[in-house]
Amino acid sequence: MTDYYSRHSATLAKAIDACDKRYSWTAYPESPSSKIHGVEKPKAGKARFEALLGTDYPLEQPGEIGRTGAEVSPYTGEPLGISYPKMDAELLYEAIREGMPAWRKASPETRIGICLEILDRCADQLFENAHATMHTSGQSYIMAFAGSGANALDRGLEALAYAHKAMADVPATAQWERQFGKGGAARLEKQYQLMPRGVGVVICCATFPLWNGYPAMCASLATGNPVVLKPHPSAILPVAMLVTVAREVLAEAGFDPNLVTMVADTREQPATMQLLEHPDTAIVDFTGSPRFGQWLERNCADKLVFTETAGCNSVVIESCDDLQAMASAIAHSLCQASAQMCTSVQNIHIPAGGILAAGQPVSFDEVAQAIVAGVEKYLENPQVLCGTLVDDSILATIERYRGLAGEHGRLLRDSGPLEYAEFPHARTASPLILEVGGEARDIYRDEIFGPVSFVIKGASSDDCLRDATANARECGAITSHVYSVDEGFLDRAVDAYHAAGASVACNLVGMPINFAAAYSDYHVTGLNPAGNACLADLAFVANRFRIVQSKRMI
Amino acid sequence: MTDYYSRHSATLAKAIDACDKRYSWTAYPESPSSKIHGVEKPKAGKARFEALLGTDYPLEQPGEIGRTGAEVSPYTGEPLGISYPKMDAELLYEAIREGMPAWRKASPETRIGICLEILDRCADQLFENAHATMHTSGQSYIMAFAGSGANALDRGLEALAYAHKAMADVPATAQWERQFGKGGAARLEKQYQLMPRGVGVVICCATFPLWNGYPAMCASLATGNPVVLKPHPSAILPVAMLVTVAREVLAEAGFDPNLVTMVADTREQPATMQLLEHPDTAIVDFTGSPRFGQWLERNCADKLVFTETAGCNSVVIESCDDLQAMASAIAHSLCQASAQMCTSVQNIHIPAGGILAAGQPVSFDEVAQAIVAGVEKYLENPQVLCGTLVDDSILATIERYRGLAGEHGRLLRDSGPLEYAEFPHARTASPLILEVGGEARDIYRDEIFGPVSFVIKGASSDDCLRDATANARECGAITSHVYSVDEGFLDRAVDAYHAAGASVACNLVGMPINFAAAYSDYHVTGLNPAGNACLADLAFVANRFRIVQSKRMI
Repeated sequence: MTDYYSRHSATLAKAIDACDKRYSWTAYPESPSSKIHGVEKPKAGKARFEALLGTDYPLEQPGEIGRTGAEVSPYTGEPLGISYPKMDAELLYEAIREGMPAWRKASPETRIGICLEILDRCADQLFENAHATMHTSGQSYIMAFAGSGANALDRGLEALAYAHKAMADVPATAQWERQFGKGGAARLEKQYQLMPRGVGVVICCATFPLWNGYPAMCASLATGNPVVLKPHPSAILPVAMLVTVAREVLAEAGFDPNLVTMVADTREQPATMQLLEHPDTAIVDFTGSPRFGQWLERNCADKLVFTETAGCNSVVIESCDDLQAMASAIAHSLCQASAQMCTSVQNIHIPAGGILAAGQPVSFDEVAQAIVAGVEKYLENPQVLCGTLVDDSILATIERYRGLAGEHGRLLRDSGPLEYAEFPHARTASPLILEVGGEARDIYRDEIFGPVSFVIKGASSDDCLRDATANARECGAITSHVYSVDEGFLDRAVDAYHAAGASVACNLVGMPINFAAAYSDYHVTGLNPAGNACLADLAFVANRFRIVQSKRMI
Repeated sequence: MTDYYSRHSATLAKAIDACDKRYSWTAYPESPSSKIHGVEKPKAGKARFEALLGTDYPLEQPGEIGRTGAEVSPYTGEPLGISYPKMDAELLYEAIREGMPAWRKASPETRIGICLEILDRCADQLFENAHATMHTSGQSYIMAFAGSGANALDRGLEALAYAHKAMADVPATAQWERQFGKGGAARLEKQYQLMPRGVGVVICCATFPLWNGYPAMCASLATGNPVVLKPHPSAILPVAMLVTVAREVLAEAGFDPNLVTMVADTREQPATMQLLEHPDTAIVDFTGSPRFGQWLERNCADKLVFTETAGCNSVVIESCDDLQAMASAIAHSLCQASAQMCTSVQNIHIPAGGILAAGQPVSFDEVAQAIVAGVEKYLENPQVLCGTLVDDSILATIERYRGLAGEHGRLLRDSGPLEYAEFPHARTASPLILEVGGEARDIYRDEIFGPVSFVIKGASSDDCLRDATANARECGAITSHVYSVDEGFLDRAVDAYHAAGASVACNLVGMPINFAAAYSDYHVTGLNPAGNACLADLAFVANRFRIVQSKRMI
């Protein structure tokens, strides 16, 4: 058997070092540029994706009782025509059980090595994954290559780094000796064995199918638990491609491939509940809507539940150095992936009296207009940044908020379709931006999925901060931004967001502000309604396994 | 302010090393012998305990609305006559909130230092704690000094070692720099701040009031959470004495003493639910009955719940080297603390055809009789080993099983009162031992609190193992024992117990087999119904805090 752990141990060591010091590092380049990859690889990847269209996806799992799947490309409006196994959960779980004892008894190094090899092989199929992600989640090609590709792989490796640390904290053996009264010395030889909890179900989301797919799978699998991936009905293919690789590596390493399986479904015939209700399911990882995330947190008390959902991410503007740079940074967030990211900005708080930009007074309207202008600029060439909409319902959402604009404030920028020459039937929408006051709290405190945002007029910058942080605490936030040249205000803002259980970024310009860096940014705090878990920290892994021990008198 | 962290850092470093290598070590000597402590300290401790009898316990907490407490000594049958503050939970929690921001902002080292100082001062009051434990939980003086004293302090220090490791895994700051496209380099300065979850409620048990008191308090407090201790109504005084020390140290260090408080109650007017229902309560640590432990696990989905309860601990006898030594070791467990320990043996499985002892066949009856004889031997001088019964209900339990003996098998040994010259009114009972067959499963699979045990006749040693491990899986086990000279059987037994989510000890003789060593034995696996948490591992601490971060562009 190949020693995958040795093969990849330098990568693991580097990841552990990066997590410890949290500098910028990546194991998987996020650019699909042919300067890095050559011209053949991108082409071959696309061809492999295209060859899957209209076929029965080749995935043989025990318990198949038919085929399922109804993915439709947001770019073409056409069904992908790919079918996946429709699974009988009971039969599948019976098969999964068979592989568990050998996997449990494998050393942590063996299991981590296999996970490292899975990530490595997935890195080799990032091009086909990019096309699969594009035509399911609707992301742009570049984003699909990076966000749910290379960046997500980094999160997987990061999870392995933490799994390694947590498991390495438990020694395999110990010698123990002490005196009990006059009875002489007792000498014991102790052995400590890590034990998995049971099946880990990973529920993936529609927009970033593998964002939690890699890290959650790695965290559970490395600690000894078999994993069942449950893709979103509209984004099955990227998950299926991961499952194929994982099963291949497991089998090559002499383990049961059913340690990683997939249960696909359709909206009409969902399969999630039968996985949650199965007594063997011990761990649930979820990325998706706050509503279902909170349902899981409240109703699965007998399982370990890790959630990453969403909130109403905010920007508070007190002052800035460079109005255009700031406006452009915010506008970028409103456009990127059509604001379908968990890090997309929704609420932009600006004091009614305006701000100082480079020391000069700028009115509320001028700041708002600078952001709108920033959006218009990005829309000159939208395809790479905006991508498409994952779902028809987002068009309805936009329609609804367009209707609410008059009632609650005014429309700063209307949404409209985007033109992609290559994809005339793409489902698209440019950002809808409303201007509202604090009296519209009821509408802007909801997490709105898609390109809808609010410029919110606050009485003062402190009032803006109060509102934004209260919303983070009560409604959730994954990213929060403050712009200010006043150190005192920045300190207060950091304190206020932290007290609300939120992280905060200050004065970010010249970079995509939605970006969260693996190995450096703790993603999701677990202290506000936007999720209970973090990518990644020790708490993400430490309880996925338990410890049993034996001691023998010698 | 005194630098408690520096003062105790060598102790912490040693504890971390002991946890890593799991050798035998203690920071707190468990013997009350005057050879170690001199003659004055024991005497002064007893005097301090006696001075508290019949008084209003001096504990001033905001929100006191009267006095409560109705402890009765199991040794004298007399009320202790001590009153404690009766608390209004809402007012108390309001006061607790005030101290939280400063505590959250204190460094991990500051918080750990204060916890180390608390443990150190508690070590200095182990004598009064021993008398307080004796006259509430009913333990013998020696056991009260060690089990809920020195040994529990070690578990507290162990929890601090893990809290330190988990918190030290998060760096305070990082520099981060990378290139984004052609936009130039982005340079960020990042700060990572540990955030507590909220109030940690520690529900202590009647028999070992501080067994989880020290570790749970240390784990929550060190990670930034205020702690409310909720003693069992029959064992308040030891907890009150810890709370006094903790508040004193906190105040001396310049923090709000209300970061550690106590809510005492009586059986008639319990206060637990109002603590559990308070929205500020984020963490619950519980030691006590399996029934309430499971209720907590199932009904507090919005809180972190750590439980240690009990199960039907077993011994499987396949063969042995020395029958008397084995019988004596098992008998010790049946007698120690009148089998009111979470590690007490309840079910002794012996094959019907007998065993080989030192290579010679010994019948089932002879093995059973050897255990009974071992018990009789310990009962020649019972006070130090057996102590008293914490509660009248245990006498009723014994009565019940005495009645069931005829129906389900036969009485191997009847229970009777023990005579303690010093305490003529002590509530005592010697071990009741029933002989039953597998058809009595319904009665021996319950966890029975108190000196009731079963010698269970199995068809074969493998049958014994099957029964014992099935019971561990389904009904819980904290300790399990196997006696065998057959390496193959031992390996099978270790495997079978592990597969049942249980730890196991092999061939322990010449030492108290109930003993679980801090820094070496992972106490409770969390994989069977006897609890979901372990003293102590990373999972015991890693999720008691969360991480928020700020990043600033530079």
